[in-house]
Amino acid sequence: MNELLIEGRNAVLEALRAGHDFESLTVQKGLHDGPVNTIVREAGKRSVRVEYADKTRLDRLSGTGNHQGVIARVSAYEYAEVDDLLAAAREKGEPPFLILLDGIEDPHNLGAIIRTANLSGAHGVIIPKNRAVGLTATVAKTSAGALNFTKVARVTNLAKTIEDLKSEGLWFVCADMGGTVMYDLDLKGPIGLVVGSEGNGVSRLVREKCDMVASIPMKGEIDSLNASVAAGILAYEIVRQRR
Amino acid sequence: MNELLIEGRNAVLEALRAGHDFESLTVQKGLHDGPVNTIVREAGKRSVRVEYADKTRLDRLSGTGNHQGVIARVSAYEYAEVDDLLAAAREKGEPPFLILLDGIEDPHNLGAIIRTANLSGAHGVIIPKNRAVGLTATVAKTSAGALNFTKVARVTNLAKTIEDLKSEGLWFVCADMGGTVMYDLDLKGPIGLVVGSEGNGVSRLVREKCDMVASIPMKGEIDSLNASVAAGILAYEIVRQRR
Repeated sequence: MNELLIEGRNAVLEALRAGHDFESLTVQKGLHDGPVNTIVREAGKRSVRVEYADKTRLDRLSGTGNHQGVIARVSAYEYAEVDDLLAAAREKGEPPFLILLDGIEDPHNLGAIIRTANLSGAHGVIIPKNRAVGLTATVAKTSAGALNFTKVARVTNLAKTIEDLKSEGLWFVCADMGGTVMYDLDLKGPIGLVVGSEGNGVSRLVREKCDMVASIPMKGEIDSLNASVAAGILAYEIVRQRR
Repeated sequence: MNELLIEGRNAVLEALRAGHDFESLTVQKGLHDGPVNTIVREAGKRSVRVEYADKTRLDRLSGTGNHQGVIARVSAYEYAEVDDLLAAAREKGEPPFLILLDGIEDPHNLGAIIRTANLSGAHGVIIPKNRAVGLTATVAKTSAGALNFTKVARVTNLAKTIEDLKSEGLWFVCADMGGTVMYDLDLKGPIGLVVGSEGNGVSRLVREKCDMVASIPMKGEIDSLNASVAAGILAYEIVRQRR
């Protein structure tokens, strides 16, 4: 996959200062000279995730062969702000419908969910900054063009974002087992649909902020649906109720 | 991914004669001696897909380094017969609910759909032999255990299988654009849900055999949902109507 890399000290520092969105910054272990420290400090200010790796790994990542100990993975698309998502709903004169993802790690799942968000009429997707995949090139590709239309916001603290959005009038429904069967919930108003990660579902802190827990009826033997499939089924239950 | 390979002339021939399910057989280009011809003939009898490749490619595929010009990719799970799927419905005393896939190529999508089949209470999945991914190791892995419970049958001609199943009383609904919105169709009886491939949807021949065309409402700008997401949304519309 053709990831978007920026390599070398000047290039990385300029990109950071220009305010580009980053997915991560990889720094060579043991390098602590002035320029590298400046880069790490700037990355910290902008909450960019910094990973340390040995030179062999950077050499392998590098496309140019001249990384000077720093390689940044920049986002394939620009992130929106949460307010932009609410504005998109207002513009269409619709009650807000947002999809919040609590830690999706598989880029194919994130891409598929952004497609679903686009087609189900959601006004945007919110993802957390940490322990989750961002808008990488693979996500852009698997979104099949949806990223050109559907806004994605990235936040530091999903539980706090839910709190803030509640004061804007949104209700939150979290997808989890042991809740109310989705058909029996009222999902018509301004709503945020919260879907958990592939392995662990929705985290406790986030679930506690939600107003409702919606369950997809499960008749089989296994534990769970694929995360993007579950998100699609719930998003379309919202579509059905809103018709 | 750890694919299941059988290498070498004797081993491949034995596996063919023992009736193991194969995904494909790769034969080195230019080899036409007796044993290789026997293997190709046996593969033909059992409708195994034969691919020809140069020695470099076989060397790269090979795990043992001793492929003798033939490498078979065996199925990670055994296929069921279509009759087994109908028997599963009878056993549960339920009207049959089958999911037919017209050319899914991405193993992650097939795995996710088998998960959905399991949890939505479908009695099995039917896939075509050609131009589609089979039960490879990747599919087994992404099915998250569902392959232990949900039967998958592989058929040579999907249109003919639909024809045969109609005489067993099944109705067929095909997922496609420009049909009736799924909420407005009656999906309660014995049913086969037909989902098309990632790129091309349902083929003309197969669509013509279907009794209904169901559409998922689409509000956004892009063309289509991910195939496994679309299958999940439609399968759960069937679940909802059957409650």
